[in-house]
Amino acid sequence: MEWKNLDTLAAWQKLEKDGHRVDLTEAMSGEEGAARVGKYAVSMGGGMTYYYAAKQVDDGILKSLCEVAAEAGLAEKFAALCNGEVINTGEKRRVLHQLTRGQLGNDVISDGVNKRTFYTDQQKKIADFARKVHNGEIVNENGERFTTAVQIGIGGSDLGPRAMYLALENWARKNGFFKMDARFISNVDPDDAASVLQTIDPAHSIFILVSKSGTTLETLTNETFVKEALKDAGLDPSRHMIAVTSETSPLAKSSEYLAAFFMDDYIGGRYSSTSAVGGAILSLAFGPEIFARFLDGAAEEDRLSTYADPMKNPAMLDALIGVYERNILGYPCTAVLPYSQALSRFPAHLQQLDMESNGKSVNRFGEPVNYVTGPVIFGEPGTNGQHSFYQLLHQGTDIIPLQFIGFRKNQADMDVDIQNSTSQQKLGANVAAQIMAFACGKQDDNRNKYFAGNRPSSIIIGEQLTPEALGALLAHFENKVMFQGFIWNLNSFDQEGVQLGKVLAKRVLAHDTDGALKAFSDLLGI
Amino acid sequence: MEWKNLDTLAAWQKLEKDGHRVDLTEAMSGEEGAARVGKYAVSMGGGMTYYYAAKQVDDGILKSLCEVAAEAGLAEKFAALCNGEVINTGEKRRVLHQLTRGQLGNDVISDGVNKRTFYTDQQKKIADFARKVHNGEIVNENGERFTTAVQIGIGGSDLGPRAMYLALENWARKNGFFKMDARFISNVDPDDAASVLQTIDPAHSIFILVSKSGTTLETLTNETFVKEALKDAGLDPSRHMIAVTSETSPLAKSSEYLAAFFMDDYIGGRYSSTSAVGGAILSLAFGPEIFARFLDGAAEEDRLSTYADPMKNPAMLDALIGVYERNILGYPCTAVLPYSQALSRFPAHLQQLDMESNGKSVNRFGEPVNYVTGPVIFGEPGTNGQHSFYQLLHQGTDIIPLQFIGFRKNQADMDVDIQNSTSQQKLGANVAAQIMAFACGKQDDNRNKYFAGNRPSSIIIGEQLTPEALGALLAHFENKVMFQGFIWNLNSFDQEGVQLGKVLAKRVLAHDTDGALKAFSDLLGI
Repeated sequence: MEWKNLDTLAAWQKLEKDGHRVDLTEAMSGEEGAARVGKYAVSMGGGMTYYYAAKQVDDGILKSLCEVAAEAGLAEKFAALCNGEVINTGEKRRVLHQLTRGQLGNDVISDGVNKRTFYTDQQKKIADFARKVHNGEIVNENGERFTTAVQIGIGGSDLGPRAMYLALENWARKNGFFKMDARFISNVDPDDAASVLQTIDPAHSIFILVSKSGTTLETLTNETFVKEALKDAGLDPSRHMIAVTSETSPLAKSSEYLAAFFMDDYIGGRYSSTSAVGGAILSLAFGPEIFARFLDGAAEEDRLSTYADPMKNPAMLDALIGVYERNILGYPCTAVLPYSQALSRFPAHLQQLDMESNGKSVNRFGEPVNYVTGPVIFGEPGTNGQHSFYQLLHQGTDIIPLQFIGFRKNQADMDVDIQNSTSQQKLGANVAAQIMAFACGKQDDNRNKYFAGNRPSSIIIGEQLTPEALGALLAHFENKVMFQGFIWNLNSFDQEGVQLGKVLAKRVLAHDTDGALKAFSDLLGI
Repeated sequence: MEWKNLDTLAAWQKLEKDGHRVDLTEAMSGEEGAARVGKYAVSMGGGMTYYYAAKQVDDGILKSLCEVAAEAGLAEKFAALCNGEVINTGEKRRVLHQLTRGQLGNDVISDGVNKRTFYTDQQKKIADFARKVHNGEIVNENGERFTTAVQIGIGGSDLGPRAMYLALENWARKNGFFKMDARFISNVDPDDAASVLQTIDPAHSIFILVSKSGTTLETLTNETFVKEALKDAGLDPSRHMIAVTSETSPLAKSSEYLAAFFMDDYIGGRYSSTSAVGGAILSLAFGPEIFARFLDGAAEEDRLSTYADPMKNPAMLDALIGVYERNILGYPCTAVLPYSQALSRFPAHLQQLDMESNGKSVNRFGEPVNYVTGPVIFGEPGTNGQHSFYQLLHQGTDIIPLQFIGFRKNQADMDVDIQNSTSQQKLGANVAAQIMAFACGKQDDNRNKYFAGNRPSSIIIGEQLTPEALGALLAHFENKVMFQGFIWNLNSFDQEGVQLGKVLAKRVLAHDTDGALKAFSDLLGI
């Protein structure tokens, strides 16, 4: 297996030299456009399909991208990752988050432990704990049931689990799976914890402290904040707290927690939604059966990601098209636009997943690369975004590729018919209309009302946002980001870029500063 | 007054030719860096200051930018706007949102109406209504007080008011000004309304229907959704609804509302937070006195924006530096990073404000421009972002200018001391540290741990996020965006780019489609 920079691949060099471009205003018009919709589609897990008809590709470009995939050995590299190779070379770690939801390769034995067994054992422990909370075996100091679960974590311990909770909250309410409210405290800004504590009943709340290392300053600070509040309310914090951490962390064996559930160094924070990090809060909120269905969806998507042929592998294909857009067409950003209010924080999760994984300037050997890597990711749910930043997407001077997501059915099954259509139909009509407006544009002699078109998008369409669909959606983007890291020859699993700020913040707090750092610290009243 | 394209200005051409660049790794180091912090600062309203020491400017570049401001006639154009000139030429409308909070020019008389008087009359009507709700004069059909206000609106009728409400919620709770909970329904996705309705008590809720035209499909659909729910609960919708709309809209004189408050065509949705659009919900939530304080902060900032000298005009200076970064340094995006959880949705509001105003490719005469215009805007609160997308900001291949916001005091006045510092101190230490990490970087032989630096940022620092500070912050960015529109010679006050999608969506709902549009509509089950 060879790790080579993108610009050294013969298939890539050939594609770069090929000046051929797809004009979407033509390609998406008339019968040819309709035919593309049928043809440029690949099945995903969770009953979804990835449609890329409105991307600036054609059979020739797709063939070239398949050659890039083969030469880069993308399938081989994913297999190596699944087999437990040390893919995170900088930190000398394996990358095992897929093992939390399935086993795609050989048994991975690390320090004598079968890692798949380790992760499923934690899931069983969590499931057991959650059931006891739900059936009243585990109660508060007054013998009363818990009604709220509060996650204390930041970054990957917050964004993914929060986005997943919001994605399934209404679905669970509708379908009788809703067990407990979930809330989240993340920011070291004390107003964050204060705000959450003001709107919950601490006596009936379980707090989940999530920190792999057990040393994340924001999280430990918020833990103390919450403990003080519990004590002030005459409650015993050790009856209200559980920990999700690594076995070697100071939190692991503490008597200050009702229980501790484990993850390890082989699961990065931003890839941890399917580990105990997402498992504890989602199992408490919706029950372990729903968490298991979420994992099943992710596992189904992971299996598709093993296919060597990109035309059958939606994550790999999405990754290749993204690199084509970034490095050949020169687009700097990607917008994620789910037409589902339940996915309101999914773009924020993808923003971390993608930008923290591939926002890097050196390859996996620590050598500077000569090409751009991860784009800026942003987004908000449609139709809200349509009334906001879509103006720039349609008529701005930069082209921003778009990732739409849509479902045929809503979650809550409440709807109204206005002007001969339901809200759900209006929602779907809007996303279909947007794809075409972006692709084909509109001629107009009034240049103010003219749309150039040629603004590429893809859409993932599913029946309904179920636990399985959500799991598949999550795994799709995890695997897309992983494949893009392979293509760019990056290590997508470390995050050295967050370290310098931490070091300097410590210096500020120790009053060990001078120059501009001291000047800013003074201005901020530290 | 001349409207000229940026690239035709002699001062701009001179600046473009000047290859001189500021190296922040030098400029921000040592005593020179400390001196810059003191020197590159300008007072804002609400007790805040705009610091731009960590921007890639020096005295020479600033002098050139001042020449651009003078040649572009920025102050003159703002004065014309304040005096009621038809600045929104495409829609042939005046631009009068500043009149909702002050009077900076001559009386503006339109169709025989003094517009300042019109806006303040609406504020008085709203204040009167809110007081009656608060003191129990206006009650539900059972004679009980209202406890919750729910805004139904989308785009500018949602993002700004929502961000402002969240910004002051904890401050109001802490300081005894909290009157009513506020909630928001915006998306046409029926799960949005369903979700809000599930978590409020409709019997004690007032719904505020916000639509300038009275024809926004999403908003009317959600109104019907809510009315059905009220009727199903045995309630009389006309006892629970008020309207914020224009006097000429179908909603204006309807008997279906408890009251109607007016705005007009001279206030764009994204500039409407200080009009009745923000006034109704904020006055109900916090009381009219707090809304008035918010307006005072905006008015103070507006007055600073009238100064012709950019060195005394923070919005104009911010605008000029932004154009320098966009058009000369070539940066495609800007990140907004408030170190205050209360500002969690402020970046989403700025995303609309900026991208919808200046995401355009034609000048105010409808002629294509030869330069890039509005950047992509995105952001999340720090410290959360630090554990997410900051990796790319520090070590990615693109440079993203950063707009930090920080305060010396938090809002809730609850805090804990951990490892010899409070949470608030940790928050401030982090933002100070980030500015320096981005500016100066760090040398390291291990390229994986190397930070190139030269990543520019500015920071707005205030004492506390009060109503006055929030108003000033809002007006600062409104005026910055306006000045950038003047510099780029755009009409920042229309949004033709949102029209095509609406037209096509109607065709889908009428089943008047063919080709790819029909194919996508079928896939989405319409």
